[in-house]
Amino acid sequence: MKIDILTLFPDMFEGVLNASIMKKAQEQEAFQYRTIDFRQYTTNKHQKVDDYPYGGGAGMVLMPQPIFSAIDDIEINPSKPPRIILMCPQGEQHTQRKAEELAQEDHLIFICGHYEGYDERIREHLVTDEISIGDFVLTGGELGAMVVIDSVVRLLPDALGNIDSAKEDSFSTGLLEHPHYTRPAEFRGYQVPDILRSGHHEKIAEWRKKQSLIRTKHRRPDLLNNYPLSEKEKNWLGDQ
Amino acid sequence: MKIDILTLFPDMFEGVLNASIMKKAQEQEAFQYRTIDFRQYTTNKHQKVDDYPYGGGAGMVLMPQPIFSAIDDIEINPSKPPRIILMCPQGEQHTQRKAEELAQEDHLIFICGHYEGYDERIREHLVTDEISIGDFVLTGGELGAMVVIDSVVRLLPDALGNIDSAKEDSFSTGLLEHPHYTRPAEFRGYQVPDILRSGHHEKIAEWRKKQSLIRTKHRRPDLLNNYPLSEKEKNWLGDQ
Repeated sequence: MKIDILTLFPDMFEGVLNASIMKKAQEQEAFQYRTIDFRQYTTNKHQKVDDYPYGGGAGMVLMPQPIFSAIDDIEINPSKPPRIILMCPQGEQHTQRKAEELAQEDHLIFICGHYEGYDERIREHLVTDEISIGDFVLTGGELGAMVVIDSVVRLLPDALGNIDSAKEDSFSTGLLEHPHYTRPAEFRGYQVPDILRSGHHEKIAEWRKKQSLIRTKHRRPDLLNNYPLSEKEKNWLGDQ
Repeated sequence: MKIDILTLFPDMFEGVLNASIMKKAQEQEAFQYRTIDFRQYTTNKHQKVDDYPYGGGAGMVLMPQPIFSAIDDIEINPSKPPRIILMCPQGEQHTQRKAEELAQEDHLIFICGHYEGYDERIREHLVTDEISIGDFVLTGGELGAMVVIDSVVRLLPDALGNIDSAKEDSFSTGLLEHPHYTRPAEFRGYQVPDILRSGHHEKIAEWRKKQSLIRTKHRRPDLLNNYPLSEKEKNWLGDQ
């Protein structure tokens, strides 16, 4: 997968995308990325990328020209054109499903604004997707782009290797994960539940499923709307 | 504000927290941060931080000892103890309201796991908050911590200076933002709406409010549940 990132702050990406699993995924050639400082595409003499909003008001707005020109300059495969993704609070909420969808693509382009607004013509005539990572305000789109990239790249074939199986992750079962315990069996007086040390695989599996359901009910009851409960599971949750 | 971050990948943070507004906020002494590699607190000879789960199954689990010990070693103010925040998919969804709440604190501690699970005793007996940034899986908690930190620090007094007023942000009005336009008035044949160049401030304000409502209705109708519509506004939305 090829990833191009339009940003005024290219240095923000290096530490994140060249660490740990993202680094290994590049070494495995699962993806490659490039940052593009779109200030280099300005045609005005002061290299301005933003200007005052038409109609007045506070804040600056990113001009269309540098961003359109930067994207014109990216080599694309016309038979499988890139997704052009604008990071913004007005966008579609990012989800695991969206990450899976984007993981099918060959080429992603991210546009990251930084506290300015975007000229509406960028939204209307250039981008294919607008994504928000949540209902909170950030100083720029860069962190959001890194979040989306991380969630997509870890799904690419060969990206994770044997480090992690994506199969037991939260969200892939539709429920929150059950509690985990590891050594020591007693730490500062706090014990590991006996059942997990019993060796009864069937009972352990049942305990885990029950804990997973109870945790989901308490913390994210909305997830249960899409989870078909068996009669036994309904009974488990009845008194919780 | 003092921020301590427990992580096995301290290098991930530098590029993000030392750029742009986060950098300026440190220069203004709005906050200071420190990364703590909790591997340095292991008491076993191979400096292991994780181990196999009790009860079997795939994946590794972070042991309680290094994380408890690392936090024991952090100096705290007993009269205003820190919030100890675990980044995890099972946590409370991060929101602007949560960012505002955390911005009132003097000291935040973040615990970032990295593809492993957490031993349940960390959740039960150490942390004060569990936060998730959304319904998607990331390779680690580091990006989530950066997202929470960015959303909190920009709310601190003096952090933004004159760069940005947080007042007109998305979410602070309860609606998505209206479209923005800047120079040029025509770009590649695409025009700025005439109204914005009319100079009629009242009509411009009305147009913006209407666009903001329409965009919210189309993209995030859930936000309108908490927005009391006037009769005029109901009429605007009636035919949209």
